[in-house]
Amino acid sequence: MPLGGARRTGTALSERQKIAWLRLIRSDNVGPATFRDLISHFGNAEAALEALPELSRRGGADRSFRIATVDEAERELEAAHRFGAVFVGIGEPDYPDALRQIDGAPPLLATKGNLNATARPSLGIVGSRNASVSGAKFAAMIARDAGAAGYVITSGLARGIDTAAHRASLRTGTIAVLAGGLDRPYPPENLGLLQEIVSGEGLAVSEMPFGWEPRARDFPRRNRLVAGISLGVAIVEAANRSGSLITARYAADFGRLVFAVPGSPLDPRCHGTNDLLKQGATVTTSSADVIEALAPLSRDDLFSRLEANEPSAEEPRPMPMPPDDTDRSRVVEPLGPTPVAIDDLIRYTGLAAPQIHMVLVELDLAGQLCRHGGNLVSLATAE
Amino acid sequence: MPLGGARRTGTALSERQKIAWLRLIRSDNVGPATFRDLISHFGNAEAALEALPELSRRGGADRSFRIATVDEAERELEAAHRFGAVFVGIGEPDYPDALRQIDGAPPLLATKGNLNATARPSLGIVGSRNASVSGAKFAAMIARDAGAAGYVITSGLARGIDTAAHRASLRTGTIAVLAGGLDRPYPPENLGLLQEIVSGEGLAVSEMPFGWEPRARDFPRRNRLVAGISLGVAIVEAANRSGSLITARYAADFGRLVFAVPGSPLDPRCHGTNDLLKQGATVTTSSADVIEALAPLSRDDLFSRLEANEPSAEEPRPMPMPPDDTDRSRVVEPLGPTPVAIDDLIRYTGLAAPQIHMVLVELDLAGQLCRHGGNLVSLATAE
Repeated sequence: MPLGGARRTGTALSERQKIAWLRLIRSDNVGPATFRDLISHFGNAEAALEALPELSRRGGADRSFRIATVDEAERELEAAHRFGAVFVGIGEPDYPDALRQIDGAPPLLATKGNLNATARPSLGIVGSRNASVSGAKFAAMIARDAGAAGYVITSGLARGIDTAAHRASLRTGTIAVLAGGLDRPYPPENLGLLQEIVSGEGLAVSEMPFGWEPRARDFPRRNRLVAGISLGVAIVEAANRSGSLITARYAADFGRLVFAVPGSPLDPRCHGTNDLLKQGATVTTSSADVIEALAPLSRDDLFSRLEANEPSAEEPRPMPMPPDDTDRSRVVEPLGPTPVAIDDLIRYTGLAAPQIHMVLVELDLAGQLCRHGGNLVSLATAE
Repeated sequence: MPLGGARRTGTALSERQKIAWLRLIRSDNVGPATFRDLISHFGNAEAALEALPELSRRGGADRSFRIATVDEAERELEAAHRFGAVFVGIGEPDYPDALRQIDGAPPLLATKGNLNATARPSLGIVGSRNASVSGAKFAAMIARDAGAAGYVITSGLARGIDTAAHRASLRTGTIAVLAGGLDRPYPPENLGLLQEIVSGEGLAVSEMPFGWEPRARDFPRRNRLVAGISLGVAIVEAANRSGSLITARYAADFGRLVFAVPGSPLDPRCHGTNDLLKQGATVTTSSADVIEALAPLSRDDLFSRLEANEPSAEEPRPMPMPPDDTDRSRVVEPLGPTPVAIDDLIRYTGLAAPQIHMVLVELDLAGQLCRHGGNLVSLATAE
C-alpha cells in the first residue's frame, strides 16, 4: 500500500530572502518562535534584521548582541553548496508537512539527500543506544514493514535502535535528524550509515549551522524534530530518563501517536517503554499495530488540513505602533520564573497582542525570556 | 499494612444438610446453577432430591439418570475426614467471600489446610508452566509483596509461575485450587509443595469429588475458581491460547482486576500477556502496581456489600405450580444452539420466571441444556 505523496504547496524563497532568513535565525537569541514573531510583525526578514539592534537594546541586551552578517550567511550557503546540502524554508514545498505544524518549527532546515523523503508521511522509530539484539531486531522489523507500507522512517542516527531503524529503511526511505551541523554527524561510527542514507532514498536534516559540534543540550532539540516530522513515534526499549522518552513526550505534546514496545520489567532497557504504556501509549507488538493506527492519519486530506495553517506569505505590512516603556513594564511586571500562557498575559495586561508579542521578542533577543511549549513564557533566571 | 479479615457471616450446614447437599451436587447433570435453582425452588436439598427423578424424566432423561445415594455421600464425607479435609458450603462463614458472588459458584468446596486463608482478600497469580527464570522471579516478587500487604495468593498449583507464586507466599498464606479431587493433585511433582501449603498458612480447595482424576476440561473450570476467589488476577507470562488467558477472561467477566506483566514481543511466552495489555489490562511492572490497585477493593465495606447478595437461608417454602407440557414446549421451542438470555426467554414466552427456571432445570438434568456465562442458555447439540 504505497501512500500517495502529499500535494506539495508553498513558495520557494529567493536567494536574497534565503540569505536574510539565514542571517536572522543565526543572530543572537533568535529562536524559531522569535523568528516567527519578527517575520509576522515586520513582514519580512530584511525589515526584521534592520529592527534587531533597537529591539534587543529595548529588551536590555548589551553591546555584545551579534547579528549575523551577509558575509557569514553567504559563507554558510557556500559551505552548504560545496557539501551538496540545500536549505529548505518553512514555507517551501519541500519542508516536511507535519513539522510545519509544531510550535517552534525551525524556519530553515539544512538538508542533504533525497528531498522526496519529506513528501511522504513519516514514522519515527527511536530507542536505547545500548539496545538488546531483540530490540534492534524488532526496530528493524517495524522499519521494514512501515517502509514497505509507504512511510518514511525518521530517527536520530544514534547507536542501537536508531541505527537499526535507519538501516532497515535505506531502500524505502529514511530521514536522519542530526543534533549538530550536517557536516558534524554523531556518533562518528555512523558516518558510513549517514552516507548510505543521503546517497540513496534518504535525507539528513539539521537546524544547526554548518560546523556546529553537537552539545548535550542539542540532542533533546534534535528529538523534538524527530517527533515533529513524524505522525507517530515508536519507542523500542528506553531506560528511565532516556532521550527516547523526551522524543515520546514531544510526540505526545504535538498530538502525534506514541507507540511503545513492552518488555520485561526486570530489564532496565524496558522501564521507560513500560512506563509509556502505563501513561497510555499504544501497546506495540507487531508492525501491524503501528501501520493500522497510522493509516487514518496518512490520507491526503490530513495534509490539506495541515496546509491551511501555513505561515503567511512574506509581504511587507503596515507596522503597528512599537510598544513604549509603559507597555514594556506592564508586560514584564507580571512575569516571573513560573511559565505563564501568553494568552493569559494578554488578558491580564489588557494590551494588544502585537504589542505584547513585540515586548516578548525584545526580551527574548536580550536573553531575558524563556519560551516553553504550549505558548508559555517565563523570565530567564540567572544561572 | 495487614488487611483486616472480613466479618464472617453465614450459617453452618448441619451434618444431615451436608449429606443432602453432597448427594445433590454429585447427582447426574447437577451443576452449580441447577443446584441453586433447585434449592431456590424446593427450599432445601432433601426436597430437591425427592423431586429429581420426576424432573429429569420430564426433561427427557432416560432411566440411566443417577442420583447420588446417602451411602455414597457418607463415604465421600468419610474419605474427606480421613484425609483431613472439610467441606464448606456456599452459605457458610468459611466460604471465600469473593467466590460466593460469581455465577456458578460451587455449592460445596472440599478444603484442606488453614481456613483462615479464606478470610482475607485474595490476589490470583497465574502464568506459563514453562516460565522463564525472570518470569518466575517476578511472580515470586509480587506474591511476596502482596502477601506481606495482607493478601492471600491464589493459584493453580501448576508448574512454572503458579509454583513460584505459591512458594513465595507459603508463610503469608496461599490457596491452591485443584482441577481434580483434593487427593489427586496435578502435576505429581508438586505433591510436596501442596503438603507444605496445607500444613502451614495455606489451603487447598477443589469442587471435584475425592478420587477424581483431572481431565483436560477440568483445568478451565479450576481457572474459573482461581479468578472467582480473587479480587484481581496477575498474569505473568502467558502464551497465546493458554490457560492463564482463560483465568484472565473469567476475572474480567467477574468484574475483577486483570494485571498483565509486559514482555518482549519476540518471546512467545509474552504474547498472551501483551495481548491482555492491548485489551486494557493494567500494565504491571512492580508489586506496587498490584497492591495500590487492589487497596480500594480490599476494605471491609466491600465484603459487607458482597454479603448482601448471600444465598438465602435454606428454608422450606411454598411450592409454585410445576410447569406443564404446554409451558415446557413454549420454553423449548424458542431455544436452539445459539445462547439466549434467560431474561429474554421470560419476556418472549410470557411465562412466570419460576416456571421457566424449572423447565430449564429439567432440561439441564436430562443433559439437554448448556448453561453459559451471563445467564445465557442454549440447547445441547449432539456431539
